Amino acid sequence: MTKTYVCPTIAEIRADVASGKTRAAEIVAQGFAAAQASQSTLHAFQYLPDALPVTHVDENLPLAGVSVAVKDIIDTADMPTEFNSPAYVGRRPAQDATVVARLRAAGATILGKSVTTEFAFRHPGQTVNPWNSAYTPGGSSSGSAAAVGAGIVSLALGTQTQGSVIRPAAYCGVVGFKPTYGTIARTGVLPLAWSLDHVGLFTRSVADAAYVLKLVAGAGPDDPHASHVPLASTVAAGRRIGMLARQVGGAVEPAQQAALDALAERLSRDGAEIVMVDLPAEIFDAPAHALTLMGVEAAITHGDLYRRSPELVSAPMRGLIEEGLRCAATDYAKAKVLQGRMAHRFDAWLRKTMTLDALLVAPANGEPPHGLDSTGDASFCAPWTFLGVPAVTVPMSFGPAGLPLGAQIVGAAGSDAALLDLAEWIEARTNWASRVSTTNDTGA
Amino acid sequence: MTKTYVCPTIAEIRADVASGKTRAAEIVAQGFAAAQASQSTLHAFQYLPDALPVTHVDENLPLAGVSVAVKDIIDTADMPTEFNSPAYVGRRPAQDATVVARLRAAGATILGKSVTTEFAFRHPGQTVNPWNSAYTPGGSSSGSAAAVGAGIVSLALGTQTQGSVIRPAAYCGVVGFKPTYGTIARTGVLPLAWSLDHVGLFTRSVADAAYVLKLVAGAGPDDPHASHVPLASTVAAGRRIGMLARQVGGAVEPAQQAALDALAERLSRDGAEIVMVDLPAEIFDAPAHALTLMGVEAAITHGDLYRRSPELVSAPMRGLIEEGLRCAATDYAKAKVLQGRMAHRFDAWLRKTMTLDALLVAPANGEPPHGLDSTGDASFCAPWTFLGVPAVTVPMSFGPAGLPLGAQIVGAAGSDAALLDLAEWIEARTNWASRVSTTNDTGA
Repeated sequence: MTKTYVCPTIAEIRADVASGKTRAAEIVAQGFAAAQASQSTLHAFQYLPDALPVTHVDENLPLAGVSVAVKDIIDTADMPTEFNSPAYVGRRPAQDATVVARLRAAGATILGKSVTTEFAFRHPGQTVNPWNSAYTPGGSSSGSAAAVGAGIVSLALGTQTQGSVIRPAAYCGVVGFKPTYGTIARTGVLPLAWSLDHVGLFTRSVADAAYVLKLVAGAGPDDPHASHVPLASTVAAGRRIGMLARQVGGAVEPAQQAALDALAERLSRDGAEIVMVDLPAEIFDAPAHALTLMGVEAAITHGDLYRRSPELVSAPMRGLIEEGLRCAATDYAKAKVLQGRMAHRFDAWLRKTMTLDALLVAPANGEPPHGLDSTGDASFCAPWTFLGVPAVTVPMSFGPAGLPLGAQIVGAAGSDAALLDLAEWIEARTNWASRVSTTNDTGA
Repeated sequence: MTKTYVCPTIAEIRADVASGKTRAAEIVAQGFAAAQASQSTLHAFQYLPDALPVTHVDENLPLAGVSVAVKDIIDTADMPTEFNSPAYVGRRPAQDATVVARLRAAGATILGKSVTTEFAFRHPGQTVNPWNSAYTPGGSSSGSAAAVGAGIVSLALGTQTQGSVIRPAAYCGVVGFKPTYGTIARTGVLPLAWSLDHVGLFTRSVADAAYVLKLVAGAGPDDPHASHVPLASTVAAGRRIGMLARQVGGAVEPAQQAALDALAERLSRDGAEIVMVDLPAEIFDAPAHALTLMGVEAAITHGDLYRRSPELVSAPMRGLIEEGLRCAATDYAKAKVLQGRMAHRFDAWLRKTMTLDALLVAPANGEPPHGLDSTGDASFCAPWTFLGVPAVTVPMSFGPAGLPLGAQIVGAAGSDAALLDLAEWIEARTNWASRVSTTNDTGA
C-alpha cells in the first residue's frame, strides 16, 4: 500500500516558494483542482467555491502557498458554515473564526469547508476513507482528515470533543494534533461542549503541525474558556515513554497492538526508555464524566432547535440533548470538579510519580470500521480530551484490511512543543514515509 | 468615637521585635490574654486553647510575634474546626490548611479559631460588633473581623463567597482584603461554593495586608480551582478611579454616600482623577448567577448531611441546599459560562474602555444592622466576588449610630499589588488613623 499526493507538505511548499521553484498561487490552484476532482469520490468538502477567488498572496508570508480545509463548524466569512445540519443550510457567518483569521494573516488560502458530522457529534457525513472508500474516515472531523489523507491539502482544521482529531487522523494515515486545552482559540467555532472542545490540526508531518501551531496558538479575544498556556515546556524533552498494558478504550485489535509494540521496540533500540505503566484507575471513568459535560453543554447550545424543530435533529443528537436536559446540576458540577481534579492528579502522576515525557497509546482499537454508518469509537481518545492534555497521532503502518494504523502520543498539559519534538523523533522511526510520496503533477 | 488597641499592627510588631524593644513571645502572650478576656463580651472565638502552647518563635521570621485568628472553616491540625455546625462538633482536622501552614512557616502564631456563620453561609454566630455589642459584626467571617476590630489580633483569616470579608471589615472598622480568585490557596478550607470562594485577610492597615499577601499567596498543591495569577500587575498603578451613581447593591444610606463623596473629594484634591461611571448593566445580574452556583455547589458539599440529619442544618442553609438540588444542569452550566464571560468583559470595560485603575464603591449600604439576627446584606460585594476581582475595604469614618463606615476599592483581576498600593494611598487620606491608637498595655 503506497500513496502519491498532489499537494506537497508545508515544509516542501515553503522550500519551493522560497527557492522560486514554484509560485504560491500555482500550488494553491493545483490543490483546488485536486479538491474539485476528488469531490465525486472522496466527498471531503461540504463546500467548495466554484472558482478559487483570485487573491494576491504575499510570497513572504509563512503560509504562502498553503491551502487549508476548514471543518464546517468553524466560521468563515467568505463561505457558508452549516454544521452539517439541515437546520443551518445557507448559514453565512459574519466573520472568520479567530483561528481562520490567523491562518489567513499568515498567508494561507482557505480552500473550502470540510465535511463534519452533524454538530461535530455522531451522525456521519458523506466523506469516505481516502485509502478505501468502503471504510469510514472517522469523525467528527471527517472531511479534514480525508482531505489531508488524500493529499489534496497539507493542512486542515478540525476539532476534538472526544476523539475527533486523533481518531480520524489515525484512520486516514495522517498526523493529527490536539494541543493542550485552550491553546488554539475557539472564538467562531460552534461548541459541542466547551469544557471539552479543542481546535486541532491535520498535517502530513509532525514538523508541519509544530510550524502551524506557532502561527495560530493563543487565546482568542472572546474565549473565556481558553487557558493561556505557555507553548514552551518548562521541562527538557526526554524520551521516557510509558506504554499501557490496558488501553483506555478497551481491547485493541492484534494488528494495532503489534504495530505499537514494534514501534516501541524500535524506539527503545534508538535510545528511548520504554516503561510499562498502569494508569490511575480513575482515568477509565473519564468518558462517563465527559458524557455528562457533553450532554448538558450540547443541550444549552442546541436546546432551542431541539424544542422548535426536533425533526431537524438526528436521533443520536436528540438523545444527547435529552440526557443533558434531564441532568441534575449537582451531577454536572461534580463532573466539572472531577475534570479539574483529575487533570491535576494526572499531571502529578505523569510528571512526578512516573517521570514520563509521554505515553504511547492506541488512538483507536485498530483500522477504521467498515461502512459509513459509524465513524468509530472515540473512547481511546476521550480521557485525554477530558484531561485537556496534548495528543498527537503519528501514522505508523497498515492493518490486515490495508488501512492505516496510527500511534497516539500523549503528554502533559502545556508540554505541546516538547511533545511535538518527541513525536517528530518517533515519526522518523516509523516506515510510514516509504509508503507515501508527493508529486506536483495533478495527474498523479 | 475612638478606640485603643492592645495589639500593635504587624508593621509595629516587626519594628518592635527588630529593635529588641519587645520579644515576639511577649506580644503573642499579650494578645492571648486579651483574647481570653474578650470572650465573655465579644465572642470572637469559637475555640481558644486553655493556655497558649509554648512554642519557640524564631524572631527573624517575617511574622514573628504576629498572632492570628483563623476562621473556623479553615483547618488547623492543633485545634478543632467545626464550621459552627452542630453536626461537626469536635471535628479535628488531620492537617493545617495550606494558608495556615504558610502563616506558621512565616513565624505567625495561630491564637484560636474565630466564629463563622454556619458553613460560612447566613445563620449567624454569637460574635458582636467590637464598636457596639448591640450590632452585628457582619458575616460570615464574623469573629475574624471582630477580633481585628477589637485590637486583639493584628491579622485574621476569613473567606468570602459573596461579601464575607469586605462587609464585616467595613462593619468592624478594619481593612479587609479579598484578593483575585485563586490567589490564596483554598486547600483545607471548607467550600461553600468553589466557583466563588476566596480566602481573604483582615488587618488594621493596608500595608499589613500587602505584607502578608506576599507571604501566603500561591495556589495550593491540591486546589484545582486556583488560578495562578501573577501578583505584580502589568500596568503601572495610576489614580484614575471610577465612582458609581448606582451602587451594585442598591440604595445606600445618606451617611455612607456622604462619606464616599467626601473621600473622593479629598482624593481628587490630592491628584486622583475621579470619574463617574455606569457599570455594564449585566453586572447587576451577577448576584442571581452567583446564587445559582452557590446553591448547587453547597448541595454537593452538604447534601449528604441534609438528607441524613436535616435537623442539624439551619433553615437558610436547608433552603440553599434545596435550591441547589432542584437546579437543572443547564442553568448551572449557563451561570458558570456567564461567570467567565462577564469576568472577561468586565476586565475589558475597566482597563480598556474606561481605563480605570480602580472603582471606589460602597462595601455595604451603610452601618451594620442593629441586632444579631442578620449579618447584613452581601449584595454590595457579591458581583465583585462573582467576577473574581480583588477588593479592599478601607475604614473611612462613622455613621449616625457611631458605627464604622468603609470604602470598597475594586480593581482588575491580577492587579492585587497595584490595587493595594492605591488603597494604601487612599487610606492615608481618611481620618481613620486619628480615631484609633495602640497600647501595649493589656489594661487598655
